[in-house]
Amino acid sequence: MSVFNVELKKVVDDSYEIEVGHELEQKLIDDIKAGLVGNIKKFAVVTDSNVKPLYADKIFGMLKDNGYKCDLIVFPAGETSKTRETKEFIEDTMLEKGYRRDCCIIAVGGGVVTDIAGFVAGTYGRGVPFINYATTLLAAADASVGGKTAVDTPLATNLIGLFNQPEKVYIDISTWRTLPQRQLSSGLAETIKHGCIADRKFFDYISENMDRIFAVDDEVCEHIAHENCKVKYQVVMKDELESGLREILNLGHTVGRAIETVSGYKLLHGEAVSIGLVAEVKLAEKLGYCTAEDVKLVAEILEKAKLPVAIPDYIDREALVKKLYTDKKVRDGKLRFVLQKGIGDIMEFDGGQYALPVSEDTAREIIMSI
Amino acid sequence: MSVFNVELKKVVDDSYEIEVGHELEQKLIDDIKAGLVGNIKKFAVVTDSNVKPLYADKIFGMLKDNGYKCDLIVFPAGETSKTRETKEFIEDTMLEKGYRRDCCIIAVGGGVVTDIAGFVAGTYGRGVPFINYATTLLAAADASVGGKTAVDTPLATNLIGLFNQPEKVYIDISTWRTLPQRQLSSGLAETIKHGCIADRKFFDYISENMDRIFAVDDEVCEHIAHENCKVKYQVVMKDELESGLREILNLGHTVGRAIETVSGYKLLHGEAVSIGLVAEVKLAEKLGYCTAEDVKLVAEILEKAKLPVAIPDYIDREALVKKLYTDKKVRDGKLRFVLQKGIGDIMEFDGGQYALPVSEDTAREIIMSI
Repeated sequence: MSVFNVELKKVVDDSYEIEVGHELEQKLIDDIKAGLVGNIKKFAVVTDSNVKPLYADKIFGMLKDNGYKCDLIVFPAGETSKTRETKEFIEDTMLEKGYRRDCCIIAVGGGVVTDIAGFVAGTYGRGVPFINYATTLLAAADASVGGKTAVDTPLATNLIGLFNQPEKVYIDISTWRTLPQRQLSSGLAETIKHGCIADRKFFDYISENMDRIFAVDDEVCEHIAHENCKVKYQVVMKDELESGLREILNLGHTVGRAIETVSGYKLLHGEAVSIGLVAEVKLAEKLGYCTAEDVKLVAEILEKAKLPVAIPDYIDREALVKKLYTDKKVRDGKLRFVLQKGIGDIMEFDGGQYALPVSEDTAREIIMSI
Repeated sequence: MSVFNVELKKVVDDSYEIEVGHELEQKLIDDIKAGLVGNIKKFAVVTDSNVKPLYADKIFGMLKDNGYKCDLIVFPAGETSKTRETKEFIEDTMLEKGYRRDCCIIAVGGGVVTDIAGFVAGTYGRGVPFINYATTLLAAADASVGGKTAVDTPLATNLIGLFNQPEKVYIDISTWRTLPQRQLSSGLAETIKHGCIADRKFFDYISENMDRIFAVDDEVCEHIAHENCKVKYQVVMKDELESGLREILNLGHTVGRAIETVSGYKLLHGEAVSIGLVAEVKLAEKLGYCTAEDVKLVAEILEKAKLPVAIPDYIDREALVKKLYTDKKVRDGKLRFVLQKGIGDIMEFDGGQYALPVSEDTAREIIMSI
């Protein structure tokens, strides 16, 4: 018997820049020409059917005009496309077109596009670089920091994926003007969540500037994009692999993801999270960590953001309770929830835990009440 | 316009132990009890239909007897199982059985099992730990060091996957006694390759001890397992992400993988690599880096190992030439080959390159000649 030691200790630098601004297509091309991804000359531009005519066609054309080999890979817009099948479709298209490891993926779109393209990049040829060009508030709020990529399966959302950091993220605020109101509102749910967990001042700022957000006011939207990155970054930097602190970003998501799935994705991600935020602030109130006033303020800001705050009638609440168990925070078969401590802070429990085990009965009671 | 910097520089320690010995099942259990994977109590034992009755059932039973929650997940043996569908089957089984992130995957089997289980582990819940219990010489030679995991697709072998390091590897030499001769021979192809690229002494040792290898002599087999790890480790340690040096491990694989695919996996991986080694040493001879004597020695040792040294008649050689272009080393549409420098060394070209562009005509000529 003998033991062979494989020593693999090393310094990894996954740092990257997020550029927030207006019409950043030319900046993207300039960055690539200046060596953002080394001397790579082949680009797979991944997008969805909504974003293709609006922004991806333009970026694709600019790449071609600059002499790069590139292909535009388009899948149907919507959360229902965030599947293993779409991942395979992108991979097979790239394989057919002869992409090897000397290529880069550019994701142009919202959270679904960046999630899936980042996952493809992580496993294509065991990893190729990728760039995110975020065209929604949701992508700016949720997908720009953290490196989470994933697909959904019939049995669970976001459980198959990996941590993968982009080479650079572009948040093009001018794209928000073409967002349908529902999409903008959906992105606001994650933005409001950031206020709830980390920053009362930001929460109030969003509430006070709601009209200017819907008008896509430059100054307000840049501030919002920047604060979203900041809040998420502060959490993620301390806990890249989601061992503890990062769970606070799950506020509203324990119930929200379950609603999203049970609704058959009729609800947008942010809409489901909105209802989840209401459910979870009510849970926090029930457990004594929030006041009735906090609950009221959270519901009010979500309504101002034109988001739903009650579980739709067509949703089977018992199925929803059951679905809670597919949450990644479930441990030893027990539901666990992140809980607000008022607005702008999160409860920390013994041993650096940020998710508290909650009985199924208590969870059911909350779900029946909204 | 503003820029937000995401700083993600950190030290990563993926070091692990490879334990080489006999009947290591109890050692595995003891290690888990001693905290090899922290306080994880749930284990998905992944294996194939051949290995299940031989070794996986035993490990599964021992885990259960020790109070761990565990499930045995079995897929049909063979390279044709190394697919995205098998990955999904394992994932879906785990999801159905309620596995979350607090679990560990134990791969019990050969290279196909460890490749696919390591890939599943890398993307399940965005990464859970895994342990390899290697039951073949091929897994000992090829899969124990390097962290390469992957599946095959109809369009290419090993192009969808990731680098993922196990928590520990067990090389149980007593399992080699139950290997059919073809499988043992297949593993010897990678072992002989290690001799070719890095160690003339090891090459000669294998040649001289071929009878004792087939008799699964303890001393010889332990030495072989250890040397395999050593050669591969020396290369991989210097180049974990396969940017240059690591390509030398591809010797015999440019042609070998293409043959494997075109044969419809009628040939085992090592059998295809064996033919690939012959093709590529002949290419090295043609380009002046090897002598006719080297070619003869390589062919002789492979024949001693009961491996094929010619392309079977049923293979369409033109299809084979075309398939070469799916190789990961292809750059700017050009075939690239690793070339032996005699036996026990590899050619290094200008700029730290270990793979030389070779014209399609030259590649075709070699393929037509064997």
